[in-house]
Amino acid sequence: MTLHLDDLRVRHLGECHYDSPFSEMLAAKKTSPHYVAEGDRVLLEDTVSMLAEHGLPPDRLPSFEAAGPRRKIYFDPAHVTAGIVTAGGLCPGLNDVIRGLVQELTVHYEVKRILGFRNGFRGMTAERCNDTIELTPDRVRDIHNAGGTILGSSRGAQDADEMVDSLVLRGINVLFVIGGDGGMRAATRLAAAIRARGLDIAVIGVPKTIDNDLPYTDQSFGFQSAFAQAANFISSVSVEAAASPDGIGIVKLMGRHSGFIACYASLARNAADIVLIPEVPFVLEGPDGLLARVERHVRAKGFVVIVAAEGAGQDLLEQRGLLEDATDASGNAKLGDIGALLRESITAHLTEVGLAPTIRYIDPSYAIRSVTANAYDSVYCLRLAHAAVHAAMAGRTETAVVRWRRRFVHVPMPLIISHRNQVDPDGDLWMSVLEATGQLVQPRTCDPLDIDLGGRGVCRSTAVR
Amino acid sequence: MTLHLDDLRVRHLGECHYDSPFSEMLAAKKTSPHYVAEGDRVLLEDTVSMLAEHGLPPDRLPSFEAAGPRRKIYFDPAHVTAGIVTAGGLCPGLNDVIRGLVQELTVHYEVKRILGFRNGFRGMTAERCNDTIELTPDRVRDIHNAGGTILGSSRGAQDADEMVDSLVLRGINVLFVIGGDGGMRAATRLAAAIRARGLDIAVIGVPKTIDNDLPYTDQSFGFQSAFAQAANFISSVSVEAAASPDGIGIVKLMGRHSGFIACYASLARNAADIVLIPEVPFVLEGPDGLLARVERHVRAKGFVVIVAAEGAGQDLLEQRGLLEDATDASGNAKLGDIGALLRESITAHLTEVGLAPTIRYIDPSYAIRSVTANAYDSVYCLRLAHAAVHAAMAGRTETAVVRWRRRFVHVPMPLIISHRNQVDPDGDLWMSVLEATGQLVQPRTCDPLDIDLGGRGVCRSTAVR
Amino acid sequence: MTLHLDDLRVRHLGECHYDSPFSEMLAAKKTSPHYVAEGDRVLLEDTVSMLAEHGLPPDRLPSFEAAGPRRKIYFDPAHVTAGIVTAGGLCPGLNDVIRGLVQELTVHYEVKRILGFRNGFRGMTAERCNDTIELTPDRVRDIHNAGGTILGSSRGAQDADEMVDSLVLRGINVLFVIGGDGGMRAATRLAAAIRARGLDIAVIGVPKTIDNDLPYTDQSFGFQSAFAQAANFISSVSVEAAASPDGIGIVKLMGRHSGFIACYASLARNAADIVLIPEVPFVLEGPDGLLARVERHVRAKGFVVIVAAEGAGQDLLEQRGLLEDATDASGNAKLGDIGALLRESITAHLTEVGLAPTIRYIDPSYAIRSVTANAYDSVYCLRLAHAAVHAAMAGRTETAVVRWRRRFVHVPMPLIISHRNQVDPDGDLWMSVLEATGQLVQPRTCDPLDIDLGGRGVCRSTAVR
Amino acid sequence: MTLHLDDLRVRHLGECHYDSPFSEMLAAKKTSPHYVAEGDRVLLEDTVSMLAEHGLPPDRLPSFEAAGPRRKIYFDPAHVTAGIVTAGGLCPGLNDVIRGLVQELTVHYEVKRILGFRNGFRGMTAERCNDTIELTPDRVRDIHNAGGTILGSSRGAQDADEMVDSLVLRGINVLFVIGGDGGMRAATRLAAAIRARGLDIAVIGVPKTIDNDLPYTDQSFGFQSAFAQAANFISSVSVEAAASPDGIGIVKLMGRHSGFIACYASLARNAADIVLIPEVPFVLEGPDGLLARVERHVRAKGFVVIVAAEGAGQDLLEQRGLLEDATDASGNAKLGDIGALLRESITAHLTEVGLAPTIRYIDPSYAIRSVTANAYDSVYCLRLAHAAVHAAMAGRTETAVVRWRRRFVHVPMPLIISHRNQVDPDGDLWMSVLEATGQLVQPRTCDPLDIDLGGRGVCRSTAVR
Repeated sequence: MTLHLDDLRVRHLGECHYDSPFSEMLAAKKTSPHYVAEGDRVLLEDTVSMLAEHGLPPDRLPSFEAAGPRRKIYFDPAHVTAGIVTAGGLCPGLNDVIRGLVQELTVHYEVKRILGFRNGFRGMTAERCNDTIELTPDRVRDIHNAGGTILGSSRGAQDADEMVDSLVLRGINVLFVIGGDGGMRAATRLAAAIRARGLDIAVIGVPKTIDNDLPYTDQSFGFQSAFAQAANFISSVSVEAAASPDGIGIVKLMGRHSGFIACYASLARNAADIVLIPEVPFVLEGPDGLLARVERHVRAKGFVVIVAAEGAGQDLLEQRGLLEDATDASGNAKLGDIGALLRESITAHLTEVGLAPTIRYIDPSYAIRSVTANAYDSVYCLRLAHAAVHAAMAGRTETAVVRWRRRFVHVPMPLIISHRNQVDPDGDLWMSVLEATGQLVQPRTCDPLDIDLGGRGVCRSTAVR
Repeated sequence: MTLHLDDLRVRHLGECHYDSPFSEMLAAKKTSPHYVAEGDRVLLEDTVSMLAEHGLPPDRLPSFEAAGPRRKIYFDPAHVTAGIVTAGGLCPGLNDVIRGLVQELTVHYEVKRILGFRNGFRGMTAERCNDTIELTPDRVRDIHNAGGTILGSSRGAQDADEMVDSLVLRGINVLFVIGGDGGMRAATRLAAAIRARGLDIAVIGVPKTIDNDLPYTDQSFGFQSAFAQAANFISSVSVEAAASPDGIGIVKLMGRHSGFIACYASLARNAADIVLIPEVPFVLEGPDGLLARVERHVRAKGFVVIVAAEGAGQDLLEQRGLLEDATDASGNAKLGDIGALLRESITAHLTEVGLAPTIRYIDPSYAIRSVTANAYDSVYCLRLAHAAVHAAMAGRTETAVVRWRRRFVHVPMPLIISHRNQVDPDGDLWMSVLEATGQLVQPRTCDPLDIDLGGRGVCRSTAVR
Repeated sequence: MTLHLDDLRVRHLGECHYDSPFSEMLAAKKTSPHYVAEGDRVLLEDTVSMLAEHGLPPDRLPSFEAAGPRRKIYFDPAHVTAGIVTAGGLCPGLNDVIRGLVQELTVHYEVKRILGFRNGFRGMTAERCNDTIELTPDRVRDIHNAGGTILGSSRGAQDADEMVDSLVLRGINVLFVIGGDGGMRAATRLAAAIRARGLDIAVIGVPKTIDNDLPYTDQSFGFQSAFAQAANFISSVSVEAAASPDGIGIVKLMGRHSGFIACYASLARNAADIVLIPEVPFVLEGPDGLLARVERHVRAKGFVVIVAAEGAGQDLLEQRGLLEDATDASGNAKLGDIGALLRESITAHLTEVGLAPTIRYIDPSYAIRSVTANAYDSVYCLRLAHAAVHAAMAGRTETAVVRWRRRFVHVPMPLIISHRNQVDPDGDLWMSVLEATGQLVQPRTCDPLDIDLGGRGVCRSTAVR
Repeated sequence: MTLHLDDLRVRHLGECHYDSPFSEMLAAKKTSPHYVAEGDRVLLEDTVSMLAEHGLPPDRLPSFEAAGPRRKIYFDPAHVTAGIVTAGGLCPGLNDVIRGLVQELTVHYEVKRILGFRNGFRGMTAERCNDTIELTPDRVRDIHNAGGTILGSSRGAQDADEMVDSLVLRGINVLFVIGGDGGMRAATRLAAAIRARGLDIAVIGVPKTIDNDLPYTDQSFGFQSAFAQAANFISSVSVEAAASPDGIGIVKLMGRHSGFIACYASLARNAADIVLIPEVPFVLEGPDGLLARVERHVRAKGFVVIVAAEGAGQDLLEQRGLLEDATDASGNAKLGDIGALLRESITAHLTEVGLAPTIRYIDPSYAIRSVTANAYDSVYCLRLAHAAVHAAMAGRTETAVVRWRRRFVHVPMPLIISHRNQVDPDGDLWMSVLEATGQLVQPRTCDPLDIDLGGRGVCRSTAVR
């Protein structure tokens, strides 16, 4: 996908007339490795070859508008009522973002009224849950100590016009949408409906995903907390598998289309022998198939640990007629159960070849995404929230705030939902996984002395891929 | 500091003749957002204005060589003996790096012999501790479960020629130095001595610092684990201060010249009212002085929490004649005790104005740097270790491996010790701290109802800086 | 069950001839609240009424022999070879016990040889895994940093005579069995076979259970670590349920016959609305049934959290024909899936009454028992291990070491497997659960203001049971 | 101290006239190992020899009244206003107790009004902070997620009559005091003043201490959380000491008169070589002195880890004139700094004998007591709170609720402050410490192979004490 400068231009509501509370402080700053001045931009790409493809001069290079406070702002804070909505599945840090938004709006911009919509976009329409919570610094002070979202969430679409009515009714002129691709899509439709009516309401997105599949984003907020938690489950099955004769440990982790959690969690513990992700197909049967590989591992070191993203091997399930033809409320296709397929086919194969496998299978599901944000994600969420408030007050709309190459930037919402970030099978991350698991090399029967305490990666040879 | 392409060119031992074990896999790859092909480079700077300063075309743009496996390697793995040394203060992840080096060297390159030097560079010279440990995958398997370094460490310089003798004696042709700026300086001298003798020994640095003050580095390994731990101590004094009438909580955190830990830890908990770092001077007395500010906080909400980097306010200590004229074994000037100065001057001031302060002062020191690496840092250390092994096997020398704008790159060692990374008072990070603590605005006497449970940031006004 | 003094008398191998290394230290001590002198005993019962039932004088009161070092020991340490085996399911602290045994045996008694049998009792017979590991202080130094058991484990019976042969072959005269009721039963049979052959081999049990269902035991080792981990999963579903309209959170926890984990984990978080345990039957239908109760909770506060021990409601499953007629390798009957029954019947009921439930169901299974021991359990395991070594060296056999009313005591093995400890529906613990969950009172429709942030226990009335 | 039945009799306000909400449920219960029926009692002592000393029959045996709900209660809940105060130093679980009190009072007894006094007993008198917080279930719902106490605390005495006035003014007839020995003493004086005026106000204590020095208490609440945190600091210095040549790690832990935290934390990590507690004197100089022992450890394994309770070695400080003659607000004598003495005398000694020690000294102080309660302590605090409410509603006064031999019981307040619980040098706990640290045996110069990775307890011999 080749992007041009225009693709990266974010939408403004209009000219900024008001002095920002940060105006004086900003006047003297200029771009540095730690700050991007107003008017400057961050390059989309950062390698020599990629620049060369674009034909310089640099003012035509694809680049993002930097986030942060502006000297002039669009809205008069005295007349701002802000709204906040959280949509889609949970992810660590939602409460941190809500808290950061409320604190920045009240402490610095002195916005007087902030409403939280309950249960996602449902809270913005005429259904049963059409209610809001008044959000104050006092109310949000300790909410980051709990996972989830104090506002509640839900999936599924609502009528855009009803939602606009709801905003107008409440006098909201600044709306923050913390949501996944479904949420960003809904926010985009909402912003279009606002534009169609000629209303002066800014819609700012803080994109969220547990799968780290957002494009133009270093790492989605909450991702580190989530994969750290996922790594604990890999340890669990690893401990179980290692303690059982012919032990087979399987963990199914989140990741419908992108295997980031599986990759990072596997690297974090370095206990996985085999990592399966949607981006890299595999076969079960045959000498290079998974079953033969599992058997070799069990024979070599007495057990094996497999980490599978939930979206891995869907083609295998389809071939076997194990896919339902169904979608969830967000319109996502229902996945087949790769964990069950692995469990059953591995048991069958190992039993057939004379082993007596003990299978330990864990599907931690919700237990991964409901944790609180760790220290890093807390900082990240706070800074995203600050950036989102600055963007809204400066009149940006249909704009998402993200971190890109360690810079906080503004990304047009359509770009955020344009495609999914995936693990690149040719990229550094997958290379690291292959190196760490030893999936590049064949397990070899080990000297018993090496393996009696659970030897890992001790004795392998014969590079394969 | 303006850098030119030549400044960023890393040193090679010579031509690469041997096929790498990764050769075939690499042949088909090209640069993408997730991979940098051999021969391509990562831009040093990433904004439009910065590019413009350089006068294009892009092949003259300052940029780094990407790290990673090469198709051809310099050393024949069958003849490689590797050495590993850890030097300087502890930092989370040292054992993870050692473990990653050993696993990559043995599993993929099939290097047969790896020696760990004990107690830093001391282990490489004729002193009492001239001993080594044989490192095998089995030996390092579980070492990441403990903080510190299994090799031991020390500060202080050793004779470069004695160290070269030690390497020659043991047949080591690949040396990994995991160390801080002292360690990188020693490694540079060592590499110069190697070059002077015309020896074929690669010296690769994995730079380490608890203070995150390495230049050309996104974030030093272990930093996230360290600031997460530091954040716990901020919570501790915050809990103590909030539970005492006129409670004053003070935490002194690591950071001789750079306040990164203080900033990130403060953002992580968002419990600090005042953050003091070496990069931003402050005064004690006067209406805008720290003492008046502390008094206002105590009167407004009943307590105050102060986070001070150990290097903050050294000018104040000097004015008061409270600096010793001494240096430690690494040649660092001994710092005055800002914590003690704060404790005493705040107690005196508040008592004078009729308050009865209860001071809770914590200096967690070693307790921050001795923790194990968290999930993120574990992944980071593992990937740095992989990159270091690839760099060494491809014959790079006097080269450090770091992550820059989320790319693993090679940086010439002299650059790594050329200056310190610091918190930019005009940068995004300090801006976030000012926003989060409310240091930009004056505390105002609060409604008792708001503060009775420890209200933070509830009622503030009047922007100041 | 009425016990008499003889029931509590532990079996000795014979007279103790050797001076213990602790002999001198022990000579001056007498019974105190912190120490029980040799020859003295701990009362089984500790209430006035219970004493009265026994007809005094006190020397006829049921009581246990205190554990601890003896002045004279039975075995000459110079001629001791010790064996250690772990059997049954995992539980936190197994490695801590192994480590404590090895350290006490070597440091204090200077026993020279300790063998660990691999994979449970299988390692003691002629099957494929008949191997052992030499255990030294160096080998076990850091094993408590990992969950599980470095020895491996398995379920199922082995031939007692083959096991005796194995002990004789290896010259083992002191065997430590760390296992559950299956393991204690096997150890009892083994000890009988040893006795039948007139061999001088001590068999000491360190009883283990994740379910805390051991009789004559304050709390089984690892239990605190396990229920703390279980409590995290209750938080997870609670966060999920609270964030979903009509959210239903269900956690299935270990506890085949005893609901201790469910009770303690529920008390630890105080987030559960309903706790279901095997000891307290319940019905689904009817005005006092579970479904009506769940409906009331959802209507009152918007969501409900249910914690079910795996053994709860088995009668309901049987009535519905949902029980398999099968047993596992340890001879335990396979349980029906109460979680699935709850999920389905609740969904059906709530849908029928016009609600749109979102079900969040977690079965953490292995993730609970594979964690490392927490600080308390580490101390406990260490002290149990010390006690076990002292018991063995003093020639006790067929004896388990446990903690009873905070005293470490010797309990004859047959007593340990005589029955199961269960939650007493009339006891303090269940009372606490009823109080904490509010299961004693009816939920009442709440004021929306109270519940919008997840109000719990705010507005209830009308005592029921 | 010999106790008689009368010493253990708790004081009642009067006859209980009202039916308890638990009346019906209790009617059918009788004493069992899990429940003590009304009228029955728990034996103080639990060994045969101790019973024999008392001269039976058992109705004269010292024993405690069991805690728990009663069938008849003293106060009419409709006319109860409850007060809660927290006094003295922080300890994990204070908020859990407050939360449990509020929930039990409102959910089960339907008490309508609960007031929290701010900043300890100061909040009950005419000083500046004479204010209260209205406590509701909503207010306390999430407070257990933070350490400390939401009510604030303070040390020091207040006038008993002023406090009674304060209670009368607010209509409080049930007061809960959560405090240490200072707090229990104040509560006792307060109760005496209430009695002197003939008022009908119950005063119930929930005794607290970070040092676990409460008599008649299994383990004080928060103690497990505290020593777990303390154990982390032992790990920290252990990691630091092991990574330094001639490394000396010293941790000073809380424990003015009782070394429980030092003992349990040392057992939990099993990393300490030497544990120093107030109860066991030691000398510095001489062949059996601490300095010689430290030197032997350093020579044998390269480093040493020392854990010292703050109250240890005060006699040594006194001999050297290093004790201030001062007391704190609670009237406790100020302790000399044993940590500083150790640091300086060890440095001097080792330098003198030709070693070059690196000292790592940590005094975590507040960081230990400000943590949140762990899962076990949360359960414990909740159950103590329930017991306290039942005691108050049943008209007990001047009574503390504690856990004794795993039974919740009522203890007269004077007994709780009659003496301190200390580590018994002849008891099981200190024995365990001696065994675990190897303080019983001499370190011996080790084979370098054993110690290169930080060998502990590998090679020791020659029993000493």
